[in-house]
Amino acid sequence: MEKIRKPQLATDYYQLSAGNVYKISGLENKTAVFDLFIRKNPFEGGYTVFAGLEQIIEYIQNLSFSGEDIDMLRKNHPEMSDEYLEYLRELKFEGDIHAVREGTIIFPQEPIIRIKAPLIQAQLIETSLLTIVNHQSLIATKASRVRTSAGSDVVLDFGMRRAHGMEAGLYGARAAIIGGCNGTSNVEAEYRFGIVSKGTMQHAFIMSFKDEYEAFEAFAKYNPNNVILLIDTYDTLASGAVNAIRLFDKLQKEGKLKGTYGVRLDSGDLAYLTKKVREMFDKAGHKNAKISASSDLDEFLIADLKAQGAKIDMWGVGTKMITAYDCPALGGVYKMSEIIDEDGTKHYRMKISDDPFKITNPGCKKIYRLYNKSTNKAEADLITLDDEVIDENKPLKIYHPFFSFKQRVLDNFYAKELLECIFEKGKLVYDSPDIKEISDYHASEKGTFWEEYIRFINPSEYHVDISDKLYDIKKQFIKEHTKKQRI
Amino acid sequence: MEKIRKPQLATDYYQLSAGNVYKISGLENKTAVFDLFIRKNPFEGGYTVFAGLEQIIEYIQNLSFSGEDIDMLRKNHPEMSDEYLEYLRELKFEGDIHAVREGTIIFPQEPIIRIKAPLIQAQLIETSLLTIVNHQSLIATKASRVRTSAGSDVVLDFGMRRAHGMEAGLYGARAAIIGGCNGTSNVEAEYRFGIVSKGTMQHAFIMSFKDEYEAFEAFAKYNPNNVILLIDTYDTLASGAVNAIRLFDKLQKEGKLKGTYGVRLDSGDLAYLTKKVREMFDKAGHKNAKISASSDLDEFLIADLKAQGAKIDMWGVGTKMITAYDCPALGGVYKMSEIIDEDGTKHYRMKISDDPFKITNPGCKKIYRLYNKSTNKAEADLITLDDEVIDENKPLKIYHPFFSFKQRVLDNFYAKELLECIFEKGKLVYDSPDIKEISDYHASEKGTFWEEYIRFINPSEYHVDISDKLYDIKKQFIKEHTKKQRI
Repeated sequence: MEKIRKPQLATDYYQLSAGNVYKISGLENKTAVFDLFIRKNPFEGGYTVFAGLEQIIEYIQNLSFSGEDIDMLRKNHPEMSDEYLEYLRELKFEGDIHAVREGTIIFPQEPIIRIKAPLIQAQLIETSLLTIVNHQSLIATKASRVRTSAGSDVVLDFGMRRAHGMEAGLYGARAAIIGGCNGTSNVEAEYRFGIVSKGTMQHAFIMSFKDEYEAFEAFAKYNPNNVILLIDTYDTLASGAVNAIRLFDKLQKEGKLKGTYGVRLDSGDLAYLTKKVREMFDKAGHKNAKISASSDLDEFLIADLKAQGAKIDMWGVGTKMITAYDCPALGGVYKMSEIIDEDGTKHYRMKISDDPFKITNPGCKKIYRLYNKSTNKAEADLITLDDEVIDENKPLKIYHPFFSFKQRVLDNFYAKELLECIFEKGKLVYDSPDIKEISDYHASEKGTFWEEYIRFINPSEYHVDISDKLYDIKKQFIKEHTKKQRI
Repeated sequence: MEKIRKPQLATDYYQLSAGNVYKISGLENKTAVFDLFIRKNPFEGGYTVFAGLEQIIEYIQNLSFSGEDIDMLRKNHPEMSDEYLEYLRELKFEGDIHAVREGTIIFPQEPIIRIKAPLIQAQLIETSLLTIVNHQSLIATKASRVRTSAGSDVVLDFGMRRAHGMEAGLYGARAAIIGGCNGTSNVEAEYRFGIVSKGTMQHAFIMSFKDEYEAFEAFAKYNPNNVILLIDTYDTLASGAVNAIRLFDKLQKEGKLKGTYGVRLDSGDLAYLTKKVREMFDKAGHKNAKISASSDLDEFLIADLKAQGAKIDMWGVGTKMITAYDCPALGGVYKMSEIIDEDGTKHYRMKISDDPFKITNPGCKKIYRLYNKSTNKAEADLITLDDEVIDENKPLKIYHPFFSFKQRVLDNFYAKELLECIFEKGKLVYDSPDIKEISDYHASEKGTFWEEYIRFINPSEYHVDISDKLYDIKKQFIKEHTKKQRI
């Protein structure tokens, strides 16, 4: 019997053990504010695409511990108090969660998810939230880059076999579509997200028949609306392309060439071979035959193939996208920014580090995106405290987040808040859009950014500033804290 | 409500659609033999560690389609015939599966899983098998390399938050332990595999208290047997280490310093800081205090820190291991090697490619590992047809797999077959060892290889040869097939 998954246990042990100490040393009734944010855009890129919120919502809504879980913890971890284990047994998430919408373009330092919850609960969910966001945002960002290269061509996710397990294939497919893929070969994604899965044929299909032509013919007979033939099993030009033309001719003669038709190449020199195949097809009168290609493609190889004049109409992208091959981890972190006593007294919290880029921002915050009124392009983001309001009618001075001597003044702008309320005192108050809406939202958001931020090589750094008020609090905290701690 | 996972759908669509054509074009009663193998060791390394068999067994045993699945396929894919959908509704895996044991050291080209099953079924399971093996073998190999660097030090998997989703964290933890980690922070892995999860404390724990010392004290009070204090929240040397010594002194005075105790560093220059901290602890009389470190560690950084004389007793390895950062995909493939007609007539099958390294081996095969009788070290592997028997009493000539002019003669050897029967006509005939046994098995197998194959930089290439009989069949097939297909 297959063992069931236990998302409530999908965490680092210290998240559970910290709760035990909080509970029995009287910190139970404190409220904590945590920010989830990234420190760096992946792929040496200029932006990141947020994804995974829907799975976070599922996780939070289902967060509870069974008797079996409690028994296991009691048995294996004698340091866990009965008091705490009873708390876990009754646990339901009771906090507030704000987040940016899935598909939103985000940048380092921005609190893309803000958690305000009883300390034990806010701590408990850290690892799971990070795991979900780090994975899906990474793949969505990669897919968004692939979409940039592919222009308006069809791009399909073919990565499942190289994903880090079946679930990574499933949510990777989801993220790939959010980032801009048109579809996926993943059938479980079809079940979960309602995207009809796509596919052509495999080498073994060809090898199951007496010869290549017979395989092509059988495929076309039973897939009359999508006759995409894999032509590289034996010899792409001498055998595959020739047999494809022979079949296309026959089908045409019989009036059966009505749907999409064409070929797929999965190996070899794609630039050379697709140009040759295109020539052969055109000469044979099959200008409508599509050529699709797969084989370790990524945004750079697609751009390069296009630059070489490769004749490829559809791109199947696998390994490099589903694993985010050239940067397979997104370093999202989850840091405490405020702790609130039972009587409501607030204390700012920061992680102070020798590395200025690792110093966090204190307080309960939100994000404004500032748009130029004339161009409707995003010009900068501003992180403020939650109770700050931006006056769109006054010029706004913004500073570089780390090099504060760099500054500029914005006028003629409007501001949009990015954080939306997802859970309020544990209650879900947000309707998740479907995957198509998220994908469309990402595409339209991407259109509000100058391409200088989107390009792959040396993208411009998008400005994310913090408000004057936040800046002062930060400075003051570092000053006080360094004094207090240094001995 | 959280949607359930559907492993039976965790596949590429073409695996399902090929079955439809097989069914309705009369190939239903053919039997196919497929090999699952890798083409290249990951990380520019000299070997790979096989893992994932236990999950494959679960997948195969649970493989069946529900009415809901069938309805979805019927609705979304009009090309699927009723005949085939009814076949799927009744489907149970009926084939034979042979595989090497988990933890086995494997090499490119070796059929580490061999499937002989009704064509439709053998095709259907391709993607899921690849996904599982590619993921777990990759992480197990990375962990085995980390183990090589760490020597006999304790190594823990701390990677979950950077894994490609929760399931990748769970099976990644499993693979990490197979490869040689002593434990994991992953609590779901504790539930699934019975490995008690480990952990220390997080920065937020420190920040939840008035100050660092108070946090340390509370932690020690409720975790008296594992007082590992995180000392880099504010200032590692000036604050963290000083507060740790203050607490160790106090606990010692009170007779409470009985279990494991020490500190963890998660940032900064680990070589410099751990040497300084060691000095401070030794001077204060805490020679038993352990120092553990985490922060983007991998096999190379661990080796480098050791070479620099860093004073680290325990290693927490996260991102770089759980994502296999420097090579995040293992290119396992699944290729048809034989197809058998209903009357028992066998036909060899090969993928012929312009790239000689991509040409596959035909026939139903097995693997012998040849050991030197005097040293008990593995000297070479030999891939033979399933019905070949090696005579250990005669000298054995083996050839380089691609450069056949390179050859050598082995005598004084014994041979061990690597493939074991897992499923026989769909029935499980194998007892999965538990994770501790698999991990021990890997460690002992690793000991039978000269370290020239295990080292990280320019490892020697371990010889994997094919038998003369297999070589002749291969040559003949290429000759015939090229003739037949070229037009």
